[in-house]
Amino acid sequence: MLTPALRNCRFLKAARCEPTDTTPIWIMRQAGRYLPEYMAVRSKVTFIELCKTPELAAEVTLTAQRVLGVDAAILFADLLPMLEPMGIDLEYLKGEGPVIHNPIRAASEIGRIRELEDLDSLSFVFEAVRQIRRDLPPNIPLLGFAGAPFTLASYAIEGGGSKNYVATKSMMYCDEGAWRTLMERLARSLIRYLNAQIDAGCQAVQLFDSWAGCLSPDDYRDRVLPYTKQVIEGIRPGIPVINFLTGNPALLPLLRQAGGQVFGLDWRVNLADGWKTIGYDVGVQGNLDPVSLMADLPTLRQRAKSVLDAAAGRAGHIFNLGHGVFPEVPAENVKALVEMVHEMGTKP
Amino acid sequence: MLTPALRNCRFLKAARCEPTDTTPIWIMRQAGRYLPEYMAVRSKVTFIELCKTPELAAEVTLTAQRVLGVDAAILFADLLPMLEPMGIDLEYLKGEGPVIHNPIRAASEIGRIRELEDLDSLSFVFEAVRQIRRDLPPNIPLLGFAGAPFTLASYAIEGGGSKNYVATKSMMYCDEGAWRTLMERLARSLIRYLNAQIDAGCQAVQLFDSWAGCLSPDDYRDRVLPYTKQVIEGIRPGIPVINFLTGNPALLPLLRQAGGQVFGLDWRVNLADGWKTIGYDVGVQGNLDPVSLMADLPTLRQRAKSVLDAAAGRAGHIFNLGHGVFPEVPAENVKALVEMVHEMGTKP
Repeated sequence: MLTPALRNCRFLKAARCEPTDTTPIWIMRQAGRYLPEYMAVRSKVTFIELCKTPELAAEVTLTAQRVLGVDAAILFADLLPMLEPMGIDLEYLKGEGPVIHNPIRAASEIGRIRELEDLDSLSFVFEAVRQIRRDLPPNIPLLGFAGAPFTLASYAIEGGGSKNYVATKSMMYCDEGAWRTLMERLARSLIRYLNAQIDAGCQAVQLFDSWAGCLSPDDYRDRVLPYTKQVIEGIRPGIPVINFLTGNPALLPLLRQAGGQVFGLDWRVNLADGWKTIGYDVGVQGNLDPVSLMADLPTLRQRAKSVLDAAAGRAGHIFNLGHGVFPEVPAENVKALVEMVHEMGTKP
Repeated sequence: MLTPALRNCRFLKAARCEPTDTTPIWIMRQAGRYLPEYMAVRSKVTFIELCKTPELAAEVTLTAQRVLGVDAAILFADLLPMLEPMGIDLEYLKGEGPVIHNPIRAASEIGRIRELEDLDSLSFVFEAVRQIRRDLPPNIPLLGFAGAPFTLASYAIEGGGSKNYVATKSMMYCDEGAWRTLMERLARSLIRYLNAQIDAGCQAVQLFDSWAGCLSPDDYRDRVLPYTKQVIEGIRPGIPVINFLTGNPALLPLLRQAGGQVFGLDWRVNLADGWKTIGYDVGVQGNLDPVSLMADLPTLRQRAKSVLDAAAGRAGHIFNLGHGVFPEVPAENVKALVEMVHEMGTKP
């Protein structure tokens, strides 16, 4: 049940392709290292301690929304902790990011991945959601999120970041049975995990398929799309899903088939072309190149205007970057971008 | 002046969109670390010594063509040595690849990049071309190559590989004058360098824009396309240019505008869709996902067949991977792929 303030907020109206007083904006990774207020909290704890301490996760989430003046908050969390209760041994190494000590390197090891049934060990996530929702302004929606099945499978198989996804694709290409078992378990786990975020207080969720751009359209269609679709179809009715994939504009028609109410575009495609491909009956989110935030303000303004112009006055555009904001970006520029978008955005 | 054997070889006929007895194939990085015959030579010298010793560069080029039975040889060389006489201080560190000690990090430093006028310091490249051409079978063309202006500019600015191209894009976005000066110098240098390869004995050349996939269509069109086009227009008439870009199918219409006779596709796009986008009046090269070579032979065969099927019997398809072959790939699989393509390829 949405309050009237939430039902009529900019973000959720745009997600329903309804006109808004101006274009809504939020920034992927808005509670991140570029922000001094975030670093003040982060300097006292490790990254994973921050993720697992609801009071601190709530604090950085709320602070980022407040200091930027963005139209949505997004839960501070990471893609990978949901894999821990599924049997993945995860560690965040200082300066190196996440490492999985027991990656799934053979089809015979798929049995080590258990479907997520009991959510108790992830209660820190839902507690953070409750605290954030309690303290957010009443007209600001809270977004939950998770990795899409392919991106999570890649982490579980590669054990960390990857350049060529050799192990992941080898399993996908050569052992369809093992691949389907893994993707099924991830999909069913994701439905439970995302619905629990919604039950705790999120008004929308985003699926991040950050790594699926390495796939050909045929492979995405046959080996990935069915599971992303399964997740989206399992989400509580009435909750908008933002379906975001980066790195391959040729997958956009298939991304649409996978479902969702809003489609996240990266900057590799012109937003006008991307929206046309996906269909004007759904919303789009994006798609400023994050490096634009390293530029001087007149250049940033001109580049933000290009993205707004590409939306051509249609209702249903949520402004964002095409990927997360970098640590090196000046926080002042992010604040300036939010003001520019509100000022230059699509008006009724 | 082409000999009849070369004029009528599979590769050059396909590059002119003429029918061939079967689909021609070569493999990007075919003289590479996956090949035992290459490693036998490489184990005695460093990578850059191999590049700069014409006898050895010729040996690995010729051996790869012979043991694989591919329809073209490609000069063994690297993208970066041409930057040395332009003022770049380049070193290949063991296990880490190329490092540039004096990257161009500010517009004020553009003056350090000189246009390549005297080719004497690159004579090892042209000497290798002469030796390879002398010893190649008379019906096998030799391909020359170079990095496209954007990819070379990225190396010169970042100083090495890059995840987000922050320095490169910052200059491109914020200092148009400096950017255009750098791209102009690279374009004019590339014309001289590639024409010298042709004069020494190459029958076609490939431009590698390996990193341009990080760009939006607008940025590619305004800041990159004019210089790639300038290079292609400067190539000796009658010499086919393969224009290859990886990482962003949305750039394909612009790649066509930049020119060339054959367009290299990566696997992120279906070859049928890519060819339709680019136009059937020109050839296409590609586009098997290189990870396919890690699969069992029946899977490899089925995946190679999908690429051949996408060409739908049209003349003008040159089979290749969508990117270079990995070191981990079994050489036997590469040989098997060449046989499969010749066996299953498009017949008259």
